[in-house]
Amino acid sequence: MKVVSTSRSHGGIQGVYSHVSEVCACDMTFAVFVPPQAKDRPLPVVWYLSGLTCTHANVMDKGEYRRLASELGLVVVCPDTSPRGPDVPDEKDNWQFGCGAGFYLDATQEPYTKNYRMYSYIAEELPALVAANFPVDMSRQAIFGHSMGGHGALTIALQNPERFKSCSAFAPIVQPSTAGWSRPAFEKYLGPDEKSWRTYDATLLIEDGRRFAEFLVDQGTADGFLEEGLRPWLLEEACKKARIDLTLNMREGYDHSYNFISTFMDDHLRWHARRLG
Amino acid sequence: MKVVSTSRSHGGIQGVYSHVSEVCACDMTFAVFVPPQAKDRPLPVVWYLSGLTCTHANVMDKGEYRRLASELGLVVVCPDTSPRGPDVPDEKDNWQFGCGAGFYLDATQEPYTKNYRMYSYIAEELPALVAANFPVDMSRQAIFGHSMGGHGALTIALQNPERFKSCSAFAPIVQPSTAGWSRPAFEKYLGPDEKSWRTYDATLLIEDGRRFAEFLVDQGTADGFLEEGLRPWLLEEACKKARIDLTLNMREGYDHSYNFISTFMDDHLRWHARRLG
Repeated sequence: MKVVSTSRSHGGIQGVYSHVSEVCACDMTFAVFVPPQAKDRPLPVVWYLSGLTCTHANVMDKGEYRRLASELGLVVVCPDTSPRGPDVPDEKDNWQFGCGAGFYLDATQEPYTKNYRMYSYIAEELPALVAANFPVDMSRQAIFGHSMGGHGALTIALQNPERFKSCSAFAPIVQPSTAGWSRPAFEKYLGPDEKSWRTYDATLLIEDGRRFAEFLVDQGTADGFLEEGLRPWLLEEACKKARIDLTLNMREGYDHSYNFISTFMDDHLRWHARRLG
Repeated sequence: MKVVSTSRSHGGIQGVYSHVSEVCACDMTFAVFVPPQAKDRPLPVVWYLSGLTCTHANVMDKGEYRRLASELGLVVVCPDTSPRGPDVPDEKDNWQFGCGAGFYLDATQEPYTKNYRMYSYIAEELPALVAANFPVDMSRQAIFGHSMGGHGALTIALQNPERFKSCSAFAPIVQPSTAGWSRPAFEKYLGPDEKSWRTYDATLLIEDGRRFAEFLVDQGTADGFLEEGLRPWLLEEACKKARIDLTLNMREGYDHSYNFISTFMDDHLRWHARRLG
C-alpha cells in the first residue's frame, strides 16, 4: 500500500492510498479518514460507496463527513467506483458503463472479467487491506453510499448481513436490473441471462429471500433521476413484503448532488454510530 | 444577473450567478448561499474571498460553511478571484499572476487596468448587485478569506472599517509586498513605485494609520507557505504596535488546504455571527 497524501482535518487524518489490486488487476486508489480517537483504541469502520462518474475524491471533497466522524470516532473508507488504467476496457463516452461505473458486481462476460470485479474488491480484498493497515475494529462495520453506491451498499449488505451492523443509502438505485441507466451495463457485464443479475439487485435479492435488519434511505424529491432511475417505492414495496424495517425519508426540494448528501450526512453517521455501539 | 444554478442545501439555497461586470469589463461568476431564515427577514452577509488558483467553486465545494450558516442565519457570498475570459490578459503558466490571481487590487499598469480591478469589484460593484438581488441586511456585513483571499479580507476591511462588523482570515498573506509569491504580481499590476503598493498590504496599511477593531486569524503549522509567503508574525507585530486586537491561533499539524479551512470554518462563522448581532 502506498500513501498518496495525508492531511490533518477535524483533529484526524484524511489520507489517500493506492495499492496493486489482485482482484481488479490494476492499481486502485481509496481514501480513509481516521479520527483522533484512534490513538486510544481500534475504531468502527463506515464504508461509503460512491455513484456513477465518481472516484474516491468526490465524497472526500464534498461529503462533509469528517466533523461528525471525528466527534463519533468513526473511520470512514471511501473506495473508487471501478477499476481504472490504460489496460482496463472502457467506453470513454459512456458515463454509465466501464470506468466510473463498476456497479459493485463481478463481471462474467469478456473482456470485463479480468478487471471488473468490484463486488469481490469491496467484499473481500479492500477490507483485508484496511484491517491490516488501519486502527480498525472489523467486528463493527457499517456501509452506505449514493446512487450507484447506494445500490452497492444495499446489495453488499444483503449479501453479507453478518458483516455489517447497519446499512443506509442516499438516493440509491434500488432496482438496477430494470432501470434505463443500468440495464445496458448489467447486460454487458453479466450477459443476457437476467437470472444472473438478481444477486446484484437489492429488490430482487430481497424477493429471493435475502434479509437485512433495517435500512435508512434519504431521497430528494427534486432529484432528476427519481422517476426513471431510482424509484425508492420499489424498495419500499420489497421491504414491506419481506418485513424489513425501512426508514424512507423523502426530502422536499433536494436534488441528486452532494448538496443533498452533505445535508443529511450527519443523520446517516449518527444512525450508523448508534448501531455500531 | 443570470442564474447559473441553484441547489437546496442544509435547508437553504446554494446558488451560482453570473453578470456582466462593468468594473472588470468581463462576465463574472459568484456563489451565494441563502439560509432558510431569509423567508422571514433580511439577513447579515458574510463575504468569503478565495485564494490563488481558486474560483467561487472551491469553497462552495469544500468549505463546509452551509450547515452552520443555516443554523446562524448568515448569507455567504463567494466571489471569483480575478477577471476571466478570452479578452482578459493572462499568463497561462503562472498561477501567481493573472487569472485566478487578482490580489483584490485595482491595477494601474497596462494592459491590466481595464480588467484587473478586483478591489473596486469587491468593495463596490458586487455589494450593490447583492444588495439589489438577495434578502440581505447590508448594515450587517463581515468579511473573511483564505491565503490571497485572507489578504483581500484584511486589506478591504482596513480600507472600509465602517462597512464591516468583523474580519477574519485563514492563513492570510499578511505582507504581500515583500512575499516572493506576490511581489512580482504587485509590480506588474501596480508598477515599480512601491509606495502605491501600501494600500494593498495589511501590515503597511496598519503602519500607515488604518485601523480595524479586531482580527481573528487561524494558521496551520504544517502549511508549506508559512515561512516564506504567509508569516503571520508580521501581522502580530503590526497589530501590537497599533493596539489592534488580534487573535492568532497556530493550529498544530494543519496544512494550507480546505481540510484546514473546513476544520475551523465553524469557529470563524460563530465569531462573525456574534459580531453581526
